[in-house]
Amino acid sequence: MNTKRTDVLVVGGSAAGIVAATTGKLYYPDKEFLLVRKEKQIIIPCGIPYIFGSLEDSNKDSISDDVLTDANINLKIGNVLSIDQKNKICKMDDDTEIIFEKLVLATGSLPIIPKWLKGIELENVFTISKNKEYIDEILTKLKDCKKIVTIGGGFIGVEVFDEINKTNKDVTIVEILSHILHLVFDEEITIEIEELIKSRGINVKIGVGVKEIIGEEKVTGVLLNDGEIIDADAVILSMGYKTNVSLAENSGIKINEIGSISVDKYMRTSNPDIFAVGDCAEKRDFITNKPIGIMLSSTACTEARVAGMNLYKLSSVKIFNGTIAIFSTSFENNSFGAVGLIEKNAIKEGFNVVTGSFNGVDKHPMSLIETHKQMVKLIASRESGIILGGEVIGGQSGGELINIIGLAIQNRMTVNSILTIQIGTHPLLTAPPTAYPIIKAAEIISKKLISKY
Amino acid sequence: MNTKRTDVLVVGGSAAGIVAATTGKLYYPDKEFLLVRKEKQIIIPCGIPYIFGSLEDSNKDSISDDVLTDANINLKIGNVLSIDQKNKICKMDDDTEIIFEKLVLATGSLPIIPKWLKGIELENVFTISKNKEYIDEILTKLKDCKKIVTIGGGFIGVEVFDEINKTNKDVTIVEILSHILHLVFDEEITIEIEELIKSRGINVKIGVGVKEIIGEEKVTGVLLNDGEIIDADAVILSMGYKTNVSLAENSGIKINEIGSISVDKYMRTSNPDIFAVGDCAEKRDFITNKPIGIMLSSTACTEARVAGMNLYKLSSVKIFNGTIAIFSTSFENNSFGAVGLIEKNAIKEGFNVVTGSFNGVDKHPMSLIETHKQMVKLIASRESGIILGGEVIGGQSGGELINIIGLAIQNRMTVNSILTIQIGTHPLLTAPPTAYPIIKAAEIISKKLISKY
Repeated sequence: MNTKRTDVLVVGGSAAGIVAATTGKLYYPDKEFLLVRKEKQIIIPCGIPYIFGSLEDSNKDSISDDVLTDANINLKIGNVLSIDQKNKICKMDDDTEIIFEKLVLATGSLPIIPKWLKGIELENVFTISKNKEYIDEILTKLKDCKKIVTIGGGFIGVEVFDEINKTNKDVTIVEILSHILHLVFDEEITIEIEELIKSRGINVKIGVGVKEIIGEEKVTGVLLNDGEIIDADAVILSMGYKTNVSLAENSGIKINEIGSISVDKYMRTSNPDIFAVGDCAEKRDFITNKPIGIMLSSTACTEARVAGMNLYKLSSVKIFNGTIAIFSTSFENNSFGAVGLIEKNAIKEGFNVVTGSFNGVDKHPMSLIETHKQMVKLIASRESGIILGGEVIGGQSGGELINIIGLAIQNRMTVNSILTIQIGTHPLLTAPPTAYPIIKAAEIISKKLISKY
Repeated sequence: MNTKRTDVLVVGGSAAGIVAATTGKLYYPDKEFLLVRKEKQIIIPCGIPYIFGSLEDSNKDSISDDVLTDANINLKIGNVLSIDQKNKICKMDDDTEIIFEKLVLATGSLPIIPKWLKGIELENVFTISKNKEYIDEILTKLKDCKKIVTIGGGFIGVEVFDEINKTNKDVTIVEILSHILHLVFDEEITIEIEELIKSRGINVKIGVGVKEIIGEEKVTGVLLNDGEIIDADAVILSMGYKTNVSLAENSGIKINEIGSISVDKYMRTSNPDIFAVGDCAEKRDFITNKPIGIMLSSTACTEARVAGMNLYKLSSVKIFNGTIAIFSTSFENNSFGAVGLIEKNAIKEGFNVVTGSFNGVDKHPMSLIETHKQMVKLIASRESGIILGGEVIGGQSGGELINIIGLAIQNRMTVNSILTIQIGTHPLLTAPPTAYPIIKAAEIISKKLISKY
């Protein structure tokens, strides 16, 4: 048995692990950091869909290990088998032991595989795993396929299939819920996304589940619950991800009621020398404080920064409790974003909501070329006026526009305060100052509230 | 003498006047609103530069009067000669009197004409006036010109000349300060803008003033202070704008020390029934509380909303004191933004500042097409950690990115709180979650602060 010692051990090499290690090293430069991961090479998780089309090659979506070596963080490829909490030792699969002072678990998540579904063991049934070799294997195999079906119309399913569609395949998205991206957007926005996706030549089946994946050895089709058979020579399961917490669980670290590693405000687990960050770590909703199963690289990185800063002492930097999930996606020059509680979820939680949607443009005057329509919907609590959530449709600036609403939510801003926010505008970059969509959406809510008095 | 009566009279028909009237009508629908303006047709002020190139026609930059008529706001074209404060009457140049309950002055600003400069009376010497007929006249005359010089390298000078440059003219910007856009950006950014502007074929003369505009009847050239003569068959003076306050001043309304109409937090002048908004109205800096001469359409619209909401009763909506100036501009696919106190201004004001600049990319992975470099600079007060200002270089999303920093300033956020802000990221829309530039810039500041302890 080979024994090594490090001050801080980070398990997991994707975004959360990297940021926890680099942030930690920044704040505690005298400590020795070691990052252990299974994968030889790391790919950028949110970039994976683009490997299937625009990028063509997984090497173009890789994170260089320079970010670690430049920061003087040691790297080891291997698998951690167990954590001895009492003696602060991790046991590896290569017969080494690593003694640590502080441990950060960034073990991420794994694709959900529906074991109950007949045919999932067939050849050419894939998941979107965050593993370079596996993605390369799919890419190779898809080359010979013409008809491809994805089961699940969430972000990964839709983004991957919009990319595969660019390679001239016949692609179909099957979503059991009433709309694609149903969990993230309100209905009017999902309808708009569906129309866009269809106009790009993608087949979309909504409101229908999959009964069976058909085939002898290889996939030949998908049987839907309504009896329809869709021909397919490959099927991609994109039914979401589950937390990868077996290492923590088997080592006696507390897991919460929805299967995430329990953490406090500073990302400390039930053992204060062991932190958890990213997909595997508990998140509580910023508004409701309920545990939620959000898996976002941006959230993971925020958590990783918090953990890194607070490894050896609390630096009281975290000014918020709870996660604000901010989603965005883009198809060609169209962007869609959502933050916080969308209308249907706010209602489900019991809020008395009032909403305002404003349709405008992302440049001004509209006669400028490449002007794109822009829509902002704000969801507020009627009594307090506090912004609970927002949704955006736009062009290239939609990703930052939804971040503005996110920052407003984080600062507990109200409809009233949004009415007079100070913004900058420019003809080529933003909506006009007279019709800045976030302010106009707040104005619509304000008008609804006035008419009640 | 023809006498009319209205509840609310708005003088001035550009962005501030329109938004004051429409917001006022929204909050006080039972009141009668009348907007009086000189111009037959209104052009979008910030869109004026694009008339000279991309738009080609001032009609493509006009604001339709539908925004007024749709909101049931009466419109009258004419000139207000005087305000009788005691009897609440405005006298017009067509021999009518308008009796009002509330008056909003949105009289804007006028181009500065340097009377001391020899040659300004020559033919083909223009200013950028916010007047459609005048702009149309320049457009017609410029058609026959080949060499055009602008005196003044502020936003208007640079934007107008980048557009004129697209029409295959030989254009030169002359700026007396050490760099173009010197008042808005720190030096390193102005240098980058200069390089970009030059690479687009525009001649830039910095650090040198103009002694004389040369010509007999028509302009033939510009004589610089260093003796150089630049040939020119047209000269555009873009030396800034001065508040248009003569109506207010002559009517006994208080004017502040820098020539703006004095207002309180709710945009009320020395007479509480008379409001002033936009370029003509007093602004105080959000950080220093000093009167400042900022003229921005976005600021004007925020003020107009505040005035409109508070016309008849204070609705206590204004949660901030002071103006946060947010500038942005764009040349082709490059954007530049600045907000609050930039470094040199913060130092001039006496702040002990600490800054952080981060260079990254606006998409991820970088291998995606159309990835643009992105830079964020944050300026903070060393002791309090409060963000004082920020600057941005980027692509299409730069206009909203600078707005995010603006919202952080408005919420008095600190470096510490920026370190853990929750943002959303997407490969095609934003920087990577591991290197979101606002957070990374805060991290650089944080590191500087740590190394001091």
